[in-house]
Amino acid sequence: CAAHRVTVLPGDGIGPEITAVALSVLEAAGQAEGETFTFTEALIGGAAYDATGDPYPDATYRACADSDAVLLAAIGGYKWDSLPSASKPETGLLRLRSSLNAFANLRPAKVIPDLADASSLKREVLEGVDLLIVRELVGGIYFGQPRGFGERDGEKVGFSTDIYSESEVERIAHVAFKAARTRSRRLTSVDKANVLEVSQLWREVVTRVGAEYPDVELSHMYVDNAAMQLIRNPRSFDTLVTSNLFGDILSDEAAMLTGSLGMLPSASISNDGPGVFEPVHGSAPDIAGQDKANPLAMVLSAALMCRHGLGIPAVAGRLEAAVAAVLASGVRTGDIAQPGKQTIGCKAMGRALLEA
Amino acid sequence: CAAHRVTVLPGDGIGPEITAVALSVLEAAGQAEGETFTFTEALIGGAAYDATGDPYPDATYRACADSDAVLLAAIGGYKWDSLPSASKPETGLLRLRSSLNAFANLRPAKVIPDLADASSLKREVLEGVDLLIVRELVGGIYFGQPRGFGERDGEKVGFSTDIYSESEVERIAHVAFKAARTRSRRLTSVDKANVLEVSQLWREVVTRVGAEYPDVELSHMYVDNAAMQLIRNPRSFDTLVTSNLFGDILSDEAAMLTGSLGMLPSASISNDGPGVFEPVHGSAPDIAGQDKANPLAMVLSAALMCRHGLGIPAVAGRLEAAVAAVLASGVRTGDIAQPGKQTIGCKAMGRALLEA
Ligand SMILES: CC(C)[C@H](C(=O)O)[C@@H](O)C(=O)O
Ligand SMILES: CC(C)[C@H](C(=O)O)[C@@H](O)C(=O)O
Repeated sequence: CAAHRVTVLPGDGIGPEITAVALSVLEAAGQAEGETFTFTEALIGGAAYDATGDPYPDATYRACADSDAVLLAAIGGYKWDSLPSASKPETGLLRLRSSLNAFANLRPAKVIPDLADASSLKREVLEGVDLLIVRELVGGIYFGQPRGFGERDGEKVGFSTDIYSESEVERIAHVAFKAARTRSRRLTSVDKANVLEVSQLWREVVTRVGAEYPDVELSHMYVDNAAMQLIRNPRSFDTLVTSNLFGDILSDEAAMLTGSLGMLPSASISNDGPGVFEPVHGSAPDIAGQDKANPLAMVLSAALMCRHGLGIPAVAGRLEAAVAAVLASGVRTGDIAQPGKQTIGCKAMGRALLEA
Repeated sequence: CAAHRVTVLPGDGIGPEITAVALSVLEAAGQAEGETFTFTEALIGGAAYDATGDPYPDATYRACADSDAVLLAAIGGYKWDSLPSASKPETGLLRLRSSLNAFANLRPAKVIPDLADASSLKREVLEGVDLLIVRELVGGIYFGQPRGFGERDGEKVGFSTDIYSESEVERIAHVAFKAARTRSRRLTSVDKANVLEVSQLWREVVTRVGAEYPDVELSHMYVDNAAMQLIRNPRSFDTLVTSNLFGDILSDEAAMLTGSLGMLPSASISNDGPGVFEPVHGSAPDIAGQDKANPLAMVLSAALMCRHGLGIPAVAGRLEAAVAAVLASGVRTGDIAQPGKQTIGCKAMGRALLEA
């Protein structure tokens, strides 16, 4: 069978280290299942800006568009923080998402019992937490027009527009209802409809789409309440669907609850092109190049890519099994270090994964 | 000396019950210090809508504007959830804030050691948590224009504008820096400047105002990261300042962390008129009228009003001491019930406070 064409974007900070591990493990798992990959590396973020002056060069766009899936590590770092907005690594990431129309960001937050002690939350609150946040990723206030700076009553103003159309809400709602069907059939739509018109449209459309999924129990919650309930009783949630901005905030909150940010993968899916698969964590510039990074979220992102982007679930299964096996064997990277367990570096974790 | 003129807004749900307790305790504490009050009751929220068709009748505005301070309990309930936006209780609250120009919302989130076990967070994470969120309350996406519904490419859109002017950011920044000075002189400004122009202006102005407060250590944090750090290490924060929307989300998150939402007061201050003092918790329609509500946040809101709105700190001290004494005596309302402590109702809590 033909090789799966993967565009690989190592990006900044710890990105290259965790990418190296993920690709070697992915290749080994593929081999075991008779699947091959061609990896095309391309630049994004600060690395791309340094090399080309553009955080998302056209060559990178073309490589991504012309592949079966995109595997991204992480972008950003202090070094580029004071660049003008258009040159910032983050802008490269936003353009990547938008150019591939990767509108559905799936962020699972599942507690790994072995690692639950690293969470700030009490063990009994965390038990059984397994939720999925479906975040709209290419609309809302991240991209809405008009935006910029202007003058009002003789002084400067800054403004951004939060806007959604019916079809933008419809397509993300369908993804969320379908995802809820593969889980426990409960969907919570999060908005701020008591204040924002854009949320009122959101709620109206999600409710309407819900009529097509009578087997899924839909409820609505205000974002401030959701931020509270995630802490009070995270187990009460199954699938959540929300806008770009609220999803940014709530998915990070949910990730932190689990206590193992370094373990969480995400998928950003389009309806008609390659998806982008990436860890939830950032580029951690403070530990970059020190062989301290945790590559497991990146490996699990590769697993998500195999399952949802490339249609090779057997390879995904092997990757996930390898991660479970190394955790069970008692080795940990620094971020998930535990008393009585051996702390190892990024490369050693890679070797442990290959053995498993 | 003349009586302090307080406009009292019991509102909806448990509002009237907790108001009755707060007023009786306030009156007793005032008497002990030789201070008297005139209470003018007025309608707001669902109660106002039911009586007049308007969730913030003009008579209420006039009573508030013509008083030294406003004491508000809570608004809202399922009953009014399907009304058109303009009639909703929440709209009444937003109009109250805006009409009084109560632009600075101060929301302390302090862990009460006796009650820390009610939190989802581990005791060691919570220890010593004492933070203050300064939320801009009359600008941003809550009030920005243009907003509403429209058409784009032949389909319906909903939109809201997040906008701040320099002077709006300046005045809230000054409040925050001054508040930080009375605390441990560390201020974290929270924004999403890597994506939003409105946040870029926010960051620029806060930084500029910061130059006038060289003794306060200013840092900036993205809102998604703040949502994480509040869980990972809430103790690392002292004073936070942020926009209306981010403040809504983060202050509720921070309140829930403490484990005692029913204990948290807030103040909304203007530069040139009466402030609004209210509990952080909502109207809890599910337990309304059952004598189960916790009146302590309302009593502590009355204390904040005495200290910051009326300039009678001695009365505030008496109210706070009474709350501390009843907690120490071991009585609890249902929301903060603890094994080995006596659970009592709202009225009984009022009697206990009066005795204390
Ligand atoms: C880096 C930033 C632009 C990005 C976002 O806000 O979407 C990040 O926080 C994320 O959630 O992937
Ligand atoms: C009721 C609602 C409009 C209000 C807000 O969003 O400001 C509430 O959540 C609050 O924080 O006081």
